[in-house]
Amino acid sequence: MDPYGLRRVVSPRGALPQRADVLDPALPLGEDELAVAVEALNVDAASFRQLESAAGRDPARIAELVLEIVRTRGKLQNPVTGSGGMLVGRVRAIGERHPAAASLRPGDRIATLVSLTLTPLRLDRVRAVRPEVERVECDGEAILFATGLWSRLPEDLPEHLALAALDVCGAPALAARLLRPGMSVLVLGAGKSGALVLAQARESLAGSGEAVAADRSEEALAAMLRAGLCRRTLRVDATDAVATLAAVEAAGGRFDLVVNCASVPGTEMASLLAVKDGGTVLFFSMATSFTAAALGAEGVGKDATLLVGNGYVPGHAELTLGLLRRNAALRAHFEARYARP
Amino acid sequence: MDPYGLRRVVSPRGALPQRADVLDPALPLGEDELAVAVEALNVDAASFRQLESAAGRDPARIAELVLEIVRTRGKLQNPVTGSGGMLVGRVRAIGERHPAAASLRPGDRIATLVSLTLTPLRLDRVRAVRPEVERVECDGEAILFATGLWSRLPEDLPEHLALAALDVCGAPALAARLLRPGMSVLVLGAGKSGALVLAQARESLAGSGEAVAADRSEEALAAMLRAGLCRRTLRVDATDAVATLAAVEAAGGRFDLVVNCASVPGTEMASLLAVKDGGTVLFFSMATSFTAAALGAEGVGKDATLLVGNGYVPGHAELTLGLLRRNAALRAHFEARYARP
Repeated sequence: MDPYGLRRVVSPRGALPQRADVLDPALPLGEDELAVAVEALNVDAASFRQLESAAGRDPARIAELVLEIVRTRGKLQNPVTGSGGMLVGRVRAIGERHPAAASLRPGDRIATLVSLTLTPLRLDRVRAVRPEVERVECDGEAILFATGLWSRLPEDLPEHLALAALDVCGAPALAARLLRPGMSVLVLGAGKSGALVLAQARESLAGSGEAVAADRSEEALAAMLRAGLCRRTLRVDATDAVATLAAVEAAGGRFDLVVNCASVPGTEMASLLAVKDGGTVLFFSMATSFTAAALGAEGVGKDATLLVGNGYVPGHAELTLGLLRRNAALRAHFEARYARP
Repeated sequence: MDPYGLRRVVSPRGALPQRADVLDPALPLGEDELAVAVEALNVDAASFRQLESAAGRDPARIAELVLEIVRTRGKLQNPVTGSGGMLVGRVRAIGERHPAAASLRPGDRIATLVSLTLTPLRLDRVRAVRPEVERVECDGEAILFATGLWSRLPEDLPEHLALAALDVCGAPALAARLLRPGMSVLVLGAGKSGALVLAQARESLAGSGEAVAADRSEEALAAMLRAGLCRRTLRVDATDAVATLAAVEAAGGRFDLVVNCASVPGTEMASLLAVKDGGTVLFFSMATSFTAAALGAEGVGKDATLLVGNGYVPGHAELTLGLLRRNAALRAHFEARYARP
C-alpha cells in the first residue's frame, strides 16, 4: 500500500510526488493504484500560455515540448510555471485494494481531479493540440494513487461542461457544509466558483435567508441575476475594503457567511469587514494571502472563523454535477460562458 | 462613530489605517476612541534590526530614526520592513462610546494588542533605546479605535512576562475553542505559541486524550517535557512531510487536531498528512502559504477543516494570562526563555 505514491518518486528521494523532479510511470501497477488510458490533457492555463509562447504558437512544437517534459519528468509539470492541469481518459486497470476497486471498471471514462503535477504519466503520441481550449489530445497512460481524486464523466452532460464545473467543485461542496436556512451570505466574485456557490446557496437556504453576489463587473452581476442565482447584487471593488464595507452597510448590514471567490489579490480585508462578529469567511480565492487574512482580522478585532477553501470534500464532484443537472439556468450560464466545446 | 479610524487617515484617502502612508494623531479624541499616554514601544523584531543596522547600532541615532518615522507617518510603521510592534502606556482619556468606557479609567496601565502599523502615534521624546529587548522608552500619545485590541497589564505578573505571552495570546484561545476531552492533538513547533497551546490542551483535555509536541530541536522538546506540558514528543523536521508522516504513524497514528505553530515555511503538507480524515488543522504559523495548504489538501485527498489562525478571540489575553497564573512550570519556562526583563 502506497497511498501517496512515494515509491514512484525518482528524485529527490523522500519527496512527495508533487514536489518531485522526476516520477516513474513505468513501475508495475500497485495493488492500490489505478491505471488510466489517457485521451486528453487539459493543461493549466498558465502552463499552456508559457508553452505556446516558447513554441512560437506552433502546435507541432507545443506537442514536442509536452512530450519532452513528460519524457524527462514522468509527469506534465511545466518546469517554468510549476503548474499542471488534469486529464481525461478511460480506466485501463485497477488494483484490487484501490478504494474504487468495487465501483470502477476498465473502460469507464473518468477525469482526474488531482493535479498533473503529481500524476505519473507516460505519453506515446500527441494526436492534436487545441490551443483554443488549452487541450492536448494524446495516447498514453497515467497512474492515480489511492488518495488521488477522480470523477466519472457523466453520460448526460457534455464533457466540456462537466470539466468546467468539476474544475472548481470543491467550492459549492464546502459551502454546502456551512450553509443553513436563514443565513445571510455574501459571495465575492461572480465567476465560475461564485456561480456554483450561489446555486448551492439557493438550494441550501431553501427560501429562507439570502445570498447576495458581489463583483466589480456589472455584466458578471447581471448574468447572475439573469440565471436566477441571486435576487440582489452589490457592485463593489473588493480590493477597496472601505468602499466594500460602505456598500455592505448600505445594503442592510454584514453577513453571516462570506465566501471569497475573487480572482484578484487584496480582497481579504473586504471579506473580514463584510462578515458579522461570530460569522465565517470561506476563502476560495487562490490569490488569498494567509497573513493578510490572519493579521487583518486581528487588526480590526474581528472574531470570525476563517477557513481555507480545501479543494476536496467527499462527494464534491457529484454535488456539483447535480447542481448543473437540477438548475437549467445555471447550466445555460456555464454553457455560454465557460464550456467552450 | 468611527470604529476603524478612517477619519484619521491622511493619505491615501479611503484606505484603512494599516495600509495608509500617513495618519493624523492630532485630531480631537473621538467619542469611541481611547487615548493612551505612551511609556514604551516594543518594536517588531524585523523593524528593530533594520533600524539598528541603518543607525550603525547607535542608540541615539535609532531614537532619531524612530522620531522621524513617527513625525512623518503619524505611526511607527517601518517604511522598509512594513512592520510595527506594540506599545505599553496608561489610559489618558476614553471616549464615552468606546467599548471599554465602563471598564477602563484614566491611569490604568495597558498594552495594545493591535499593531503599531495602524495606531495613530505622536512622540514627544525618546527617553531610552534598549536594543537587547527591542524596546524604545518614550513619552507620547497613541489612539486606539473602538475595534483596537488592548489588555490591562496584570499587577501580579512581571510586565516582561505578560508581554511575551500576550504577543501570541490568540493561539491558546483559538485552540481552546477546538479542544475537547478525548482528542489526540499534535502541536507542531515548541516555541512560544506552541508551549501555550500545549498548556491549554492540558487543561482542555482534562486528562483524557493526549497532546504531543513536535519540533526539530531536541532541546526545545526536552523543555516541553520538563515543564510538564506534554508527556510525549516527536522529533521531526516538519518541512519533510514524508518523514513527519512516518514518525506520526510510528507513534500511533494520525491526530484529531494539528496546531501548526512552526516558525519556518514549508510545513503545510506535514500538517495535512498528520491529521485524520475529518480532523482539523489550525494554522498559526505566519509562514503558512495559503495555496500550499489548499492545494496540498486536494492533492492528497484530505478531508480536513483548515483554519486560518485568527489572532483575535474575545478574552484571549485573560485566557493566556490565566494559563501563566495557574501553571508554575509554564511560567518558569517563559521566564527563562522569553521574558528578558
